[in-house]
Amino acid sequence: MHKNHFHKLLVKDLGIDTYRENIIFIRADSHVCRSEGFTALTRVVVHKNGAEIVATLNVVTSNLLQDGEAGLSQEALKRLGVTDGTIIEISHLHPIDSLKYVRAKIYKKELDDIGYSEIIKDVVAGHYSNIEIAAFVSACAGNNLSVQEIISLTKAMIAVGQRLDWHQPMVLDKHCVGGLPGNRTTPIVVSIIAAAGLTIPKTSSRAITSPAGTADTMETMTPVNLSIDEIKRVVDLEGGCFAWGGAVKLSPADDLLIAVEKALDIDSEGQMVASVLSKKAAAGSTHILIDIPVGPTAKVRSQEEALRLQYYFKAVSDAIGFHTEIVITDGTQPVGRGIGPALEAQDVLAVLRNETDAPNDLRQRSLALAAELLKLSGNYTLGTERTAAQTILESGKAYEKFMAICMAQGGFTEPEVAPYSYEILAEKDGCITAIDNRKLARIAKMAGAPKSPTAGVMFLAPLGKCVQKGDVLVRIYAESHGELEYAKEYVATIEGLVEIG
Amino acid sequence: MHKNHFHKLLVKDLGIDTYRENIIFIRADSHVCRSEGFTALTRVVVHKNGAEIVATLNVVTSNLLQDGEAGLSQEALKRLGVTDGTIIEISHLHPIDSLKYVRAKIYKKELDDIGYSEIIKDVVAGHYSNIEIAAFVSACAGNNLSVQEIISLTKAMIAVGQRLDWHQPMVLDKHCVGGLPGNRTTPIVVSIIAAAGLTIPKTSSRAITSPAGTADTMETMTPVNLSIDEIKRVVDLEGGCFAWGGAVKLSPADDLLIAVEKALDIDSEGQMVASVLSKKAAAGSTHILIDIPVGPTAKVRSQEEALRLQYYFKAVSDAIGFHTEIVITDGTQPVGRGIGPALEAQDVLAVLRNETDAPNDLRQRSLALAAELLKLSGNYTLGTERTAAQTILESGKAYEKFMAICMAQGGFTEPEVAPYSYEILAEKDGCITAIDNRKLARIAKMAGAPKSPTAGVMFLAPLGKCVQKGDVLVRIYAESHGELEYAKEYVATIEGLVEIG
Repeated sequence: MHKNHFHKLLVKDLGIDTYRENIIFIRADSHVCRSEGFTALTRVVVHKNGAEIVATLNVVTSNLLQDGEAGLSQEALKRLGVTDGTIIEISHLHPIDSLKYVRAKIYKKELDDIGYSEIIKDVVAGHYSNIEIAAFVSACAGNNLSVQEIISLTKAMIAVGQRLDWHQPMVLDKHCVGGLPGNRTTPIVVSIIAAAGLTIPKTSSRAITSPAGTADTMETMTPVNLSIDEIKRVVDLEGGCFAWGGAVKLSPADDLLIAVEKALDIDSEGQMVASVLSKKAAAGSTHILIDIPVGPTAKVRSQEEALRLQYYFKAVSDAIGFHTEIVITDGTQPVGRGIGPALEAQDVLAVLRNETDAPNDLRQRSLALAAELLKLSGNYTLGTERTAAQTILESGKAYEKFMAICMAQGGFTEPEVAPYSYEILAEKDGCITAIDNRKLARIAKMAGAPKSPTAGVMFLAPLGKCVQKGDVLVRIYAESHGELEYAKEYVATIEGLVEIG
Repeated sequence: MHKNHFHKLLVKDLGIDTYRENIIFIRADSHVCRSEGFTALTRVVVHKNGAEIVATLNVVTSNLLQDGEAGLSQEALKRLGVTDGTIIEISHLHPIDSLKYVRAKIYKKELDDIGYSEIIKDVVAGHYSNIEIAAFVSACAGNNLSVQEIISLTKAMIAVGQRLDWHQPMVLDKHCVGGLPGNRTTPIVVSIIAAAGLTIPKTSSRAITSPAGTADTMETMTPVNLSIDEIKRVVDLEGGCFAWGGAVKLSPADDLLIAVEKALDIDSEGQMVASVLSKKAAAGSTHILIDIPVGPTAKVRSQEEALRLQYYFKAVSDAIGFHTEIVITDGTQPVGRGIGPALEAQDVLAVLRNETDAPNDLRQRSLALAAELLKLSGNYTLGTERTAAQTILESGKAYEKFMAICMAQGGFTEPEVAPYSYEILAEKDGCITAIDNRKLARIAKMAGAPKSPTAGVMFLAPLGKCVQKGDVLVRIYAESHGELEYAKEYVATIEGLVEIG
């Protein structure tokens, strides 16, 4: 494709981290810029024995670089697999053909398999700038995708990733659509299901717009950046795992789209369904349980929205050949007490250890989901699943399995506690009548979660609980003074976090 | 608003040009990153005595910077008005409130005056990243804006810019919706109207997705980066001007939106109308003529689309209080021979100089538009406008006025000719039956237009012209060997550029 003029340049590692984007730095007055007419923001192709990436040009007007040298961002160095001193070649970027599909989508056209496949291939190849990914993500948001399009997108995302094969007829998985702070049932459910002798190779994501993803939470207790071989070893050994999906590039397209969705703080129903199911397919799952919490301030706010999602998940699952069950659950308030990686980990451990003060809502929810999965497996007489799940948890078998999996993944450490904290107190006597999950999540994020693992919020005022003036409603944790101050400032500006009637 | 912790840092000018985006470079292991939890892509506020910008953080892992130092991109240095050695302060960015409107728009909600006003204010203040601007632009594209929203957007864009006041009841202006290569009537029309004693302070834009904008073309002959005072001086002296709107920040919001639209190669009808009319309002215009060329490969492809645009322009003009007339013109083929800044300038001069071989289509079109403007002025008996326009052109008065305006703007220079060229020849005898304007424009762009002012395409095969095998259909001009090769490669891959029947 790139048959035009190549220019040899000497790589200089400037040690600049631009996160996801490939940036190349070249002198404005260099031979290559003058002869090819390259200027700031020109998109160029960078080659190194066969491998190639597309990078955005930042021109340098200082002596940071000499003529003939090219600085590459850390991401670009990694993607191209080169280091300081390597000779690379750069050339013009031919127009990216698949952008015509992105433009068509912006204009509300319906795309087919080919459109999504071309777009996703280019995204994964690093041919898109963040601006172009943002345009695609935005065009797909707002329920702009038909079911057929969601199927096409899902297939395209599956096609560019790896796919695990467990050589067995039934591989279980579960996923919570999220948006419910502290809803960390996965580690408990996986432990119960694996303890029941079933296979559940769980890969989880990190937080997109929430204060913590399951991978963030598990990482405070055990390594989650497992390679595919490590996942296979752990699952062969214990029947389950707690791995970060991103680390194994099970759905590389998804990781890139999510990075931009996160920056924009938007979720698209179609992309969410494609994201979830592409990861499940990549993980080699066959039987999947989807948990959709519904509440006025949860990610899914109405029963109607939940039913639409249920329909999407069902339709796409059928097209791909999954056995998928959907449960719509209560999303009116946080689950457990902790909101943030380490704080949620403490709740998880309390339930697994059958501690008397363990958050009962998290316990009940986990048992219900585990029971649904046992039912989905078809190995239990109808009605006995719940008891089976409860027995496994109360007998300590689930905790044993949890620890065994952690050990197989590289060890277990107790989650730590953040050094800085601040308490929000009840201003009057009364009972809790309303909670704003979004504001709670935002406080946790401003305090540093999930980037700072021990940061977040301890929520002590569940609906219906009666409190006295001065009681602690919420305790904020932060790892730095600046972040705590930042969260406190935000708290000072909001109202209706917790309503006392 | 930003009451959180400030950190003092010493500015280091790294000489890195990131084009439009504010980037700040800080060591990953610096005190500020550790204490505030800043990482790559964190958006931070940079302060310098009162002034503040929002910048995206790129963390540095090398000795490029020391702890306590901050590198700023050229754009950030300019916007903040600081240089190497200045002490700046940085702090957390509070959530940008107006992004909630962008998200609402992505979800197809209709926004009101406040929504657009808040978004545009933040965009102009530099609070949006390019990713966020891309999301807004995409959400507004695809005819996603109601007329009321276009009015709100236009008002918002007018509000953040300056506004010229000419202290007179009638200030004329014209605008071509574009998409027609080589359609450079503006310099001719402005010269005729100003020669007629009317006031037409024309501000033009640079190319968005086309090979040349009027500002690009005029810049090959005279300075167009005029300050507002210079525009006033020129117009007071000569009645008209050829200024680049962007230089005077008449519509600063527009310049930022267009930078992203350009990167995405999309045009949004609503944003186009808002963009055009906000510039007209800023220029202090009262009577406006809009030229909408229609053709299968022009920007506006169908009569229906043209009529919808006409409706938008009329409705928004009424809301703002403009006298606006729309003419829908033939857009089936390029106008004149040149496509690209300098090449189009040569056509303009040929017409103004009444040269016998001047492109007649450009001449006729310019006369028709000038006549419409004279009619709009109400100073002429119906039916006499066309003769009046023609007399002014043929008498040389238009050329005199053109030169006088150029002199007032800082002098006139003959447009130059590019050093590299390549000819596309007719492969058989016959007459021209079809032309693909988009492919012609793309060739000109790949050859370097408008960045390389003398680059572009000389189009010698108008519809209906009969040619013999070997005749030159198109001559490509480039300023560098690489760019010429690049354009030639593209030509080799396409078909249907010019159809010979």
